[in-house]
Amino acid sequence: MKKIKVGLLGLGTIGTGVARILLSNRDVISDRLGAELVLKHASDLDINRDFGVKFPDGVLTTDSEAVASDPEIDIIIELIGGTGIAKTLIEKAISAGKHVVTANKALLAVHGRELFGMAAEKGVSLAFEASVGGCMPVIKTMRESLVANRISAFTGILNGTCNYILTRITEEGLPFSEALAEAQAEGFAEADPTLDIEGHDTAHKLAILAALAYGIKIRLDDIYVEGISGISPIDIQFAQKTGYTIKLLAISKNDGRAVEARVHPAMIPKSSMLSHVNGQLNAISITGDAVGEMMLYGHGAGMMPTASAILADTVDIAIDILQGGESRMPAMPFTAGHMKEIPIRPIDEITTGYYLRLAAVDRPGVLSKISGILGNRNISLKSMVQTERKLNGAVPLFMLTHPAEESMMKKAIKEISDLDVISGRPVLIRIEEEFQDTED
Amino acid sequence: MKKIKVGLLGLGTIGTGVARILLSNRDVISDRLGAELVLKHASDLDINRDFGVKFPDGVLTTDSEAVASDPEIDIIIELIGGTGIAKTLIEKAISAGKHVVTANKALLAVHGRELFGMAAEKGVSLAFEASVGGCMPVIKTMRESLVANRISAFTGILNGTCNYILTRITEEGLPFSEALAEAQAEGFAEADPTLDIEGHDTAHKLAILAALAYGIKIRLDDIYVEGISGISPIDIQFAQKTGYTIKLLAISKNDGRAVEARVHPAMIPKSSMLSHVNGQLNAISITGDAVGEMMLYGHGAGMMPTASAILADTVDIAIDILQGGESRMPAMPFTAGHMKEIPIRPIDEITTGYYLRLAAVDRPGVLSKISGILGNRNISLKSMVQTERKLNGAVPLFMLTHPAEESMMKKAIKEISDLDVISGRPVLIRIEEEFQDTED
Repeated sequence: MKKIKVGLLGLGTIGTGVARILLSNRDVISDRLGAELVLKHASDLDINRDFGVKFPDGVLTTDSEAVASDPEIDIIIELIGGTGIAKTLIEKAISAGKHVVTANKALLAVHGRELFGMAAEKGVSLAFEASVGGCMPVIKTMRESLVANRISAFTGILNGTCNYILTRITEEGLPFSEALAEAQAEGFAEADPTLDIEGHDTAHKLAILAALAYGIKIRLDDIYVEGISGISPIDIQFAQKTGYTIKLLAISKNDGRAVEARVHPAMIPKSSMLSHVNGQLNAISITGDAVGEMMLYGHGAGMMPTASAILADTVDIAIDILQGGESRMPAMPFTAGHMKEIPIRPIDEITTGYYLRLAAVDRPGVLSKISGILGNRNISLKSMVQTERKLNGAVPLFMLTHPAEESMMKKAIKEISDLDVISGRPVLIRIEEEFQDTED
Repeated sequence: MKKIKVGLLGLGTIGTGVARILLSNRDVISDRLGAELVLKHASDLDINRDFGVKFPDGVLTTDSEAVASDPEIDIIIELIGGTGIAKTLIEKAISAGKHVVTANKALLAVHGRELFGMAAEKGVSLAFEASVGGCMPVIKTMRESLVANRISAFTGILNGTCNYILTRITEEGLPFSEALAEAQAEGFAEADPTLDIEGHDTAHKLAILAALAYGIKIRLDDIYVEGISGISPIDIQFAQKTGYTIKLLAISKNDGRAVEARVHPAMIPKSSMLSHVNGQLNAISITGDAVGEMMLYGHGAGMMPTASAILADTVDIAIDILQGGESRMPAMPFTAGHMKEIPIRPIDEITTGYYLRLAAVDRPGVLSKISGILGNRNISLKSMVQTERKLNGAVPLFMLTHPAEESMMKKAIKEISDLDVISGRPVLIRIEEEFQDTED
């Protein structure tokens, strides 16, 4: 049986998972591929740890550079992460004519265009299914299954840590800080969780998906990003009572004139499938002109689900090699020269409904003053609720608005904040209603 | 730009959808493919109807045989359906060295092995993504994205008509016949709905998926099939009250010793994602050793979603052609010669929980008699509820059991039915509990 040789760079959690599958599911893979995927070398700075995997003699090495340029190796799997040495090694591997598989979303979001260009020039694949959504085959689905569709929108829950935290606040009424501490204690939130909870990890994924979905060039800076650290149990409770769930979403829409690309917490109807995606799980809903709305759901991170995606890419490339062809698909879904230039719509120009929470002094005329300010900006209220419970001397005032332009909302909020009857910073959460109802 | 020529056989709903996409999304497809997909001929018995699609001159023809053997055509899309002329034309096309794309699940479930064999011999593809799950990329996901996984189970809601009917009974308490009439009036249940409501359509799909998932040969006769016509609003109401939803499921499990393959209505926990799949929508949950449980969700049928899947296959094949290679993947996921022989577990040997509804005379001692019979067969009750409402002189008696072997349950039911205090036929619905909770 023909052998395809693989070099693995980085034996962290995912790398170890890849090694484990390569060694333990070797038979399944070779049955399906009709060839053997052989792990020739796996490199890490420290190879004397217990990886919980029995590596054959001679596989482990500390010399990543040698692996990346080993002439016997056909496919390099890069799982070092970051934009430093990982980039250098990928460039080395591509220059040596090797195909590369990576899960490095930060690297692709920042240097993707350059690396895909290099890969195209050398006629090799740079595969990245594992960079978004773990085991959910979102890259393959967008690129291959929806190839005949104009994709008009996608909405994803793409960060398991954030979704876990929001789920715990929803279920237990924990304050944000406690839910975060719990996620850290459970071992799936980083010691420095900023990248996750401030939405940047989700933005990296959105950048990759928007490029794929619409065949456009998109920069990280184009994406509006807002994290979940400002969400309180009181907001989630109000959302629940009014038929909504709060999720951190990657939202993108393309109406042909401009593309929306934003990451922020949003209230979504409880009747939507996405609202049932809880805990560490991820999901992505994609709308195409032929398929309507479809959804993928599964573990978006973790050792084995991510390793599974890495190996799906690796086998795809192995088939290319067996066929004797070049890289089967251009890395990006639209062929070179056909990338579109569509402007990114600034966040000020989007239109959504809003949830607004204010701390107001309980005095006659306050409500009419606030609704007057909103009315002047063409923002119409759907509901307004004042509870009796006092928070720091003020009563919370909850409002839901009909869709309005963000710039108008910002101006209204500025004006409202300046009122002397308002204390503290208003809390604003966007409402996304346009989901397929599960009752459809 | 290079041209790949396509011949379309059959202009029913799906065929017309394929033509519509080929003509209206031509630019999207060629941008992504780097070549043009040209519809050279589309055949139908009646080409003078208004298809709502503007076919270029000379495309329409009534001569399907000529299309199937046209030397200029690279890919044949068969959408005639059935196991008669469709089979003949596919054979003709394969013999002429053409690749074939089909949505014909009945044909594949019955003659799949023979046709895949022919295709393998000629080195052409026989693609069938559209045969299961409409726009959900279940074939591609199983075959490619989960290639490094041992798949241990899958559970699908794969028939939109049945799911619509069950949803309407659940939401409105309609009797089965009314819900069916409504589905027919809405135009998505066939005039003769037997194939759908008796579960045979779902069984066809299960046969295809089980072969793919486990690399086994499976015959339609091996699949236990039970439809939804016996489900009453009263059963659904009880399920709802006890935390379950009733769905028609395709269920398959593989423990390495035997494969379960069955189609029947089942009670599933309301906390599972599948329980939220309502109306005409379809979903499939797949469990692999690396990915855990994942799910695909979307429109499982209909003109455009199915046409989208047809064209995904067509583009995949077009890439093969552009690469100059042979068929990229064997039609079945396990390469020839590696198919496994695993026995199918007879329905009598499966173990599940059961819901049981009896009509019993309201007389002292009846309950203890029934629970005694169950106890003798090692079936332990989880709950037993007797309502006061009389139906035809008897009171309905509801029971939920802990998991038990089906053969034991059948014997117990036989004995219970024979009691003179029991009237009518007991209603039995299996309970499937093993889903990832959305709270995980």
